[in-house]
Amino acid sequence: MSNQTPVPAGFRGVAGNIGIKDPHDDFFVVVSEVPAHTSAVFTQSRFAGPSVVQSRRAAADGDVRGVVTIARNANVATGPEGAAHAREVQELAATAAGIPADEMIVASTGVIGRPYPMDKVRTAFRGLTAPLPPADLDRSAAAMMTTDTAPKTASARVGGATVTGIAKGVGMIEPNMATMLAWFFTDAELDKETLDAVFRRVVERTFNALSIDSDTSTSDSAAILANGLAGPVDTGEFEEALYGVALQLVRMIASDGEGAGKLIEVRMTGARDDAQAKRVAKTVVNSPLVKTAVHGADPNWGRVAMAVGKCSDETDIHPENVRIVFGDVETYPEPSDEKVLQRAAEYMAGSEVVIGVDLGIADGAFTVYGCDLTEGYIRINADYTT
Amino acid sequence: MSNQTPVPAGFRGVAGNIGIKDPHDDFFVVVSEVPAHTSAVFTQSRFAGPSVVQSRRAAADGDVRGVVTIARNANVATGPEGAAHAREVQELAATAAGIPADEMIVASTGVIGRPYPMDKVRTAFRGLTAPLPPADLDRSAAAMMTTDTAPKTASARVGGATVTGIAKGVGMIEPNMATMLAWFFTDAELDKETLDAVFRRVVERTFNALSIDSDTSTSDSAAILANGLAGPVDTGEFEEALYGVALQLVRMIASDGEGAGKLIEVRMTGARDDAQAKRVAKTVVNSPLVKTAVHGADPNWGRVAMAVGKCSDETDIHPENVRIVFGDVETYPEPSDEKVLQRAAEYMAGSEVVIGVDLGIADGAFTVYGCDLTEGYIRINADYTT
Repeated sequence: MSNQTPVPAGFRGVAGNIGIKDPHDDFFVVVSEVPAHTSAVFTQSRFAGPSVVQSRRAAADGDVRGVVTIARNANVATGPEGAAHAREVQELAATAAGIPADEMIVASTGVIGRPYPMDKVRTAFRGLTAPLPPADLDRSAAAMMTTDTAPKTASARVGGATVTGIAKGVGMIEPNMATMLAWFFTDAELDKETLDAVFRRVVERTFNALSIDSDTSTSDSAAILANGLAGPVDTGEFEEALYGVALQLVRMIASDGEGAGKLIEVRMTGARDDAQAKRVAKTVVNSPLVKTAVHGADPNWGRVAMAVGKCSDETDIHPENVRIVFGDVETYPEPSDEKVLQRAAEYMAGSEVVIGVDLGIADGAFTVYGCDLTEGYIRINADYTT
Repeated sequence: MSNQTPVPAGFRGVAGNIGIKDPHDDFFVVVSEVPAHTSAVFTQSRFAGPSVVQSRRAAADGDVRGVVTIARNANVATGPEGAAHAREVQELAATAAGIPADEMIVASTGVIGRPYPMDKVRTAFRGLTAPLPPADLDRSAAAMMTTDTAPKTASARVGGATVTGIAKGVGMIEPNMATMLAWFFTDAELDKETLDAVFRRVVERTFNALSIDSDTSTSDSAAILANGLAGPVDTGEFEEALYGVALQLVRMIASDGEGAGKLIEVRMTGARDDAQAKRVAKTVVNSPLVKTAVHGADPNWGRVAMAVGKCSDETDIHPENVRIVFGDVETYPEPSDEKVLQRAAEYMAGSEVVIGVDLGIADGAFTVYGCDLTEGYIRINADYTT
């Protein structure tokens, strides 16, 4: 790959093929050579998979050395056997990487309800020897793809340090605590508490602001590993850099949403508070009628009004105070003539559509990210086989 | 129409063309010759249209004589002008029917954000003279269609009385208090309080159990008019008859959902209480991944598990207690082999798919109705013009 994604100092790893479904890479391991702090967030699904359960335990003390991810099989709803398999994958990967099992985060993505082909898994991991070679994060990002059409990586410099993120996800995406899978690696030095606070703030404004189809995965996981090899950094600058990297990944995921043709950004302003802005913005970005209107490049602001209106618990929303714009074209409440609608339609023909809604209540604001709803989403999901 | 829908005693009316969009019938008026009791429920949208506002006032005292409905234009988000238009339509229709304006329910459905062509509306209503001819409820049902592919009517006898309902609705349907538009007429005699209690119980189990696309209209309205001409009826029998009529209409609406090929019925049992059963069932029937799986006749029970799992606030749901069936084919927790999945796929090829989920907590139960998500929904809604 010509644009190789920068790898922070001290991260080693490997990607390869277990043979779960086809000959493409379907797993990777990334480990830090030295101890690292972590912050991690996981799905809130009641059907959370055993990999999530194992990872929650591994990350609980704020110290983790590595991540192993297997694609093409989610190992979810697989009963006690699936739980044993998740523990074994964690151990196999940790052994291969030369670290303790309880310092390895484990993640799985793919079809629900099928046991792992453990013979193949064992063969693949036992073929690895520590120390692993320097990490290749482009290949790692590619190895965790399912119906993704492209690997998703982003990187930034902060002081003398690097922060790099890789992510995957295209459908079953309305993260509740995290997205499908997103891993961040940095050689910046931060104490555990600061790292955790920064990471959670960033996740709230990025992955938790994303919805492809309002369906929440059983496997959502996001974590950052910080090994400190580049020394201390300014916390504010680090948060800004991490936010930038995470936002890039979120925009890639939205643009690559199953069947998506357009990225939708809903900027909600004038709300009672940020939480209200987020609730209403999510309702707009998830509305099938708004999503299909964007697909058709139709400036159907009435559907945006409908979506705002269906937040019936938000009794301080009054139609006469609301303002709706597509890009910089106001469509409501100013009566929009044909010329205005024509300008809005031209704007909506582009690949990114910003819908601005001001509720006219106070100063709360929140921006969320999603994509249009197309025939492609139907095709992918009506044909995707159990 | 050969199968003419029965009209209860004492209901007169007319349907015709205002010319709002095309030469098809686009309005109807139905009135009772004698005073009638009513119970009515309306959308909870914060963008509720002025027709809903007027109708709430008209129905508030439990006495209403008639209903006027205009299709092809929702008269929503049209400002003070739209409010004045709704009042004028109410007055024009009441004058034509020979009843007081404040005893006329008014409803509108169609595109949002365009003012009524009031010259045409006035011409149409001033051409009518009281008393109106006997009502034709088939023609009335057809006159309020938008993207409906067929008029929706249902009727039942209870004692010496008749109860008939007509409805419309295909998209923007997850009624919060009512469906798009559903009108019930009966000559049964019931006191106001009984009528109201019965109607609300029936609506809760029928229209409030329906979701086409999780989008809530700004115009949802449902009402019953009972004029008593057939004398008293047994309340229990009446509720059963009304429930049957309402459920038939709901199933027609779900089957005719925009682009729909299949009716989906989600039967949630074993919940903590009926309210929890309803919340989780709605989450399943609204999941785009469940809806596309049904479209593809794919017994992808993992997506049902995912949808149950995303109800993350329901902390008493535990995967090991959940049971998932398609028709009578159990797919979880019993490991489903190829033969079982094949049987489930055959069942799902039919036009009605029942998904049963038992949460294994207690005895709460609720059944909801929806439809699959198809390329047709995308085409209809990406092309439907503002």
